[in-house]
Amino acid sequence: MQIKLDHALTMIAAARKEAQKINVPMVIAVVDEAGHLIAQQRMDDALLVSLDIALSKAYSAVAVKMATDELGALAQPGQPLFGIHTCDNSRIVIFGGGFPIKYNGRIIGGIGVSGGSVEEDMRCAHAGLNALVLPE
Amino acid sequence: MQIKLDHALTMIAAARKEAQKINVPMVIAVVDEAGHLIAQQRMDDALLVSLDIALSKAYSAVAVKMATDELGALAQPGQPLFGIHTCDNSRIVIFGGGFPIKYNGRIIGGIGVSGGSVEEDMRCAHAGLNALVLPE
Amino acid sequence: MQIKLDHALTMIAAARKEAQKINVPMVIAVVDEAGHLIAQQRMDDALLVSLDIALSKAYSAVAVKMATDELGALAQPGQPLFGIHTCDNSRIVIFGGGFPIKYNGRIIGGIGVSGGSVEEDMRCAHAGLNALVLPE
Amino acid sequence: MQIKLDHALTMIAAARKEAQKINVPMVIAVVDEAGHLIAQQRMDDALLVSLDIALSKAYSAVAVKMATDELGALAQPGQPLFGIHTCDNSRIVIFGGGFPIKYNGRIIGGIGVSGGSVEEDMRCAHAGLNALVLPE
Repeated sequence: MQIKLDHALTMIAAARKEAQKINVPMVIAVVDEAGHLIAQQRMDDALLVSLDIALSKAYSAVAVKMATDELGALAQPGQPLFGIHTCDNSRIVIFGGGFPIKYNGRIIGGIGVSGGSVEEDMRCAHAGLNALVLPE
Repeated sequence: MQIKLDHALTMIAAARKEAQKINVPMVIAVVDEAGHLIAQQRMDDALLVSLDIALSKAYSAVAVKMATDELGALAQPGQPLFGIHTCDNSRIVIFGGGFPIKYNGRIIGGIGVSGGSVEEDMRCAHAGLNALVLPE
Repeated sequence: MQIKLDHALTMIAAARKEAQKINVPMVIAVVDEAGHLIAQQRMDDALLVSLDIALSKAYSAVAVKMATDELGALAQPGQPLFGIHTCDNSRIVIFGGGFPIKYNGRIIGGIGVSGGSVEEDMRCAHAGLNALVLPE
Repeated sequence: MQIKLDHALTMIAAARKEAQKINVPMVIAVVDEAGHLIAQQRMDDALLVSLDIALSKAYSAVAVKMATDELGALAQPGQPLFGIHTCDNSRIVIFGGGFPIKYNGRIIGGIGVSGGSVEEDMRCAHAGLNALVLPE
């Protein structure tokens, strides 16, 4: 099972709708199982920095096979993975908003959202994840 | 006049439709007047290299205020701008498929398409440009 | 309202004057609302590292829509945005000296100063901000 | 003899005045003998790509100890230095508009101008060079 462009657009539309509901402009990105971009959208007036962060969150979730908020807990000073945020050309994000996309227990891609508080980003990313419907 | 996300999605949808008509998977990107991404989509099975090239074509058209095929003519060996393709962190593309988006004579963004032959890329980019409807 | 080159030079001259008053050589940069450089000046004998830091501070303030000292508070270990300093190609600075330039509540650019202590940098950046006079 | 900030600002003002005379918005940069920026200014509406190119031209003139148009002749296909434009992280520009700043036969810095045709860039850079007055 691979994420098609139309799957990604469905996920992004759902995340965007949630972002509109809470009135926070977001950048939303979906990547494939190799971490490569399938689609990305920047809502009007979203933070410029979110262009990079949304994509990097989606990438990180695939690259580390973990949600970025879970990774963040392991990456604090004194924790086992402190310093990982500068690995891989500093593409690894260690705060919430990036999630792996799973299918039958396998990771087939990632979604990343940036633009609001970490909680808002995670909420919109979840909306995107929930919108994905794949065949059994 | 600024290009909104919905404008960009309309343009990309039109370029994608043209790409489907000629049966060539493309990557399509739209950037704002500062060269920053608004939206990007990778069609299923598109070339991996096209992710960078489509975005860089859109960026180049804004950064140089010229279509990338026009720039290419000035950037051949012996021509005045030979070597420009490695400027600006090598983001400048010197073959066709990137166009400025104009409104009342001013450049308000750029579109870039990559995935087929240069002629195919340009054809799909034109379809995107033609789909943009802005108020007088 | 856009920041013109002459606005930027006025701001930089004021920041420089303040730096001379406290006898600390500084680098001062002003960027537009897209984060792109308008003008940058390095005072004689300023720290070499300040070339990058001043520009990155100005960029960060625009990219995150926040002063860099405010961002710094959110980016400490254990805080929500810990790790953001290596995002966006490590261009995000998380200590003071970068400020958004606002006009009627909208961010139209950023100023960044580097070369002294954080307090000195902030003081000179404020002098630059205060020197900007825009029409009502 | 070192180029001070005030020297650089004098040179840039002269280059800018020439650019205004021919009505072409330019980016103008001056670097020191180590190739590091002293000052840079982007005139309103100048090409975005010129931000990088002006600075890289100034850097190249210092790094290669040669005007960039002279270097360009040596960097064409079949010539001895073909390929040099991708050296040094692709910062080497091989078309006109970058000149070393000399004092008593020694190179003490560089000036780079970008925004118009190569001839226009060179003309404005010359205006900058001619404006520099150093003690005997």
